[in-house]
Parts: sequence; structure tokens; C-alpha cells
Amino acid sequence: MTNTTEKLLPMAHAAQNRCFGCGPANPSGLHLEFLLAEDGSVVCLTTVPDNFEGPPGYVHGGIIATLLDEAMSKAVRARGLVAMTRKLEVEYPRPVPSGAAIRLEGKILSSEGRKHWVQARILNVHGSELAHGKGLFIEVRPRVAALIGADPG
Amino acid sequence: MTNTTEKLLPMAHAAQNRCFGCGPANPSGLHLEFLLAEDGSVVCLTTVPDNFEGPPGYVHGGIIATLLDEAMSKAVRARGLVAMTRKLEVEYPRPVPSGAAIRLEGKILSSEGRKHWVQARILNVHGSELAHGKGLFIEVRPRVAALIGADPG
Repeated sequence: MTNTTEKLLPMAHAAQNRCFGCGPANPSGLHLEFLLAEDGSVVCLTTVPDNFEGPPGYVHGGIIATLLDEAMSKAVRARGLVAMTRKLEVEYPRPVPSGAAIRLEGKILSSEGRKHWVQARILNVHGSELAHGKGLFIEVRPRVAALIGADPG
Repeated sequence: MTNTTEKLLPMAHAAQNRCFGCGPANPSGLHLEFLLAEDGSVVCLTTVPDNFEGPPGYVHGGIIATLLDEAMSKAVRARGLVAMTRKLEVEYPRPVPSGAAIRLEGKILSSEGRKHWVQARILNVHGSELAHGKGLFIEVRPRVAALIGADPG
């Protein structure tokens, strides 16, 4: 599913991180592991198990939103920034099957001060887009970033 | 947290339902239980445990989207319809604490054929709004509804 010409570097995930989306220390989380592409976008190759389904066989709409939110958050994080979601818009053109390999991508569209507009999408193994979204993320001040830890997910 | 003057009736949740949001048979789900108000809106009184956190102490943005998506879905369901999320918009004005009682509300705004526009919000015990959202739900045809079961969540 990875393009053989693309270079992807693993992003650090703190072992004690309990984030539902990306925390290795959360036993019931999604355990998403992101890779950083040369253009600053992020990629995650994953398979969502059936305990995150809505209708049988398909990933819950809220979990799809979680996948996209995580990809957007990590795209901001890849710039060394800690930010919180202020607004999230998700479109669901096609259902996302559970138990099937998917590719999750996120990238920053534009930034203005502490505001970052970000987009993300989910593709199947054939490269077809199953869901996509946009988000507005607001950088948290260093004092808050310290309070919520170095890897808030 | 319930208004003593409001009348709320429990909505049915099939015991074998494995939906991540509302399925009693999903061991790692949110186990949301909805109540139907006299005006056709739905209400859920719940507390989100810390394994669904993003930053420590606060519910993950994707789980907040899941809560709102569930409330919207159940508002449509309360009319006897089975529908899938086509579009979801979430605003996060304030963080939602984990381990704290919250009230989740959903109601249909308007309908046109198989399209239903729905809104939902999350309140704290003081009645302050922490997050809100809007969604477009598309009714599935009876054949699809049968395939995904009577209570697809």
C-alpha cells in the first residue's frame, strides 16, 4: 500500500502515552502509528478491528472522525506544535470496512498565528477515498502543553 | 442532571448489538443508553471513562464526535428510521472532562425525503455547553437496513 518511491520516517510515540488514538499505553485504544513524509504530511497504515464498528462490518462514523482527527493532530505535531481541535468537518462518501487495511493521511493546509487549518483522508488499498475531513486546530500555550504532557495525541 | 419536569422513556438496545457507541455486546464500547423525550429528541446521561481520553483528563476529540454522531443517529432512529452519517460537523468550544457526568442531547432539525439534518450537543452538570455538532444522515433502503441488523447504532 505504500508507494515504493515515497520516503516515510516513524514519528515518536511516548511509551506512557494513554491517548485513545495513538497511545501505546492505552489497552483499549486504536494504537495508530504515524509516519512523516518528506513534504511534512503524515501517513498511518492501519486496520481497524471489529470492536470499533457501527453497523456490522463497517467502522463506526465516530471512529472514522477519530482517525481523521488524529491524522490532522499529528500533521500539526510534525511541525513541533501542540494543538487542540476547535472544529472538525467529516464527509463520509463511502463506508470504511473494519478488518481491512486502510491508509490515513493528514496535512496542514494553512496557518495564521496559533490557528492551523488541516485536512485528512482515508483511502482503501486500491487508493479510493472512503472518507475525508477538514479541521481547525488551535495551538495551546507552552504552559498548557506542559500540563497535558509532551505527547498529548 | 435530569430536569424533574421532563419525561424520558428508555430506547431499546438489542442485547447482541456490538456497535462501538451503544452496543451492550461490545466489551470495549461506550455503552451509551438513550432516552426518548416527549418532543422526539433523545437524551443520554453518561460518564466517559479515562481510556477514551486524548490529553490526560479530557475526552478525545474523536470520541466527542462519536458521542454527537450517536445522539444524532438515535434521534433519527427514534422516528423508526435507519440512517447512515453522510456529513458531520463538530465544534469544540470547551474541553469535555473524562470521568465526569455529562448530558448528551440530539434532535432532528429538518427532513427532506431520505435526508435528515440533525443536531446534537454535550452539556456538563451545570448545563454549560461543552461541544455541539450538526450532521446529515441518509436513510438506508430497507434491504440494507435488514443486512446491517435491526439496531445498527
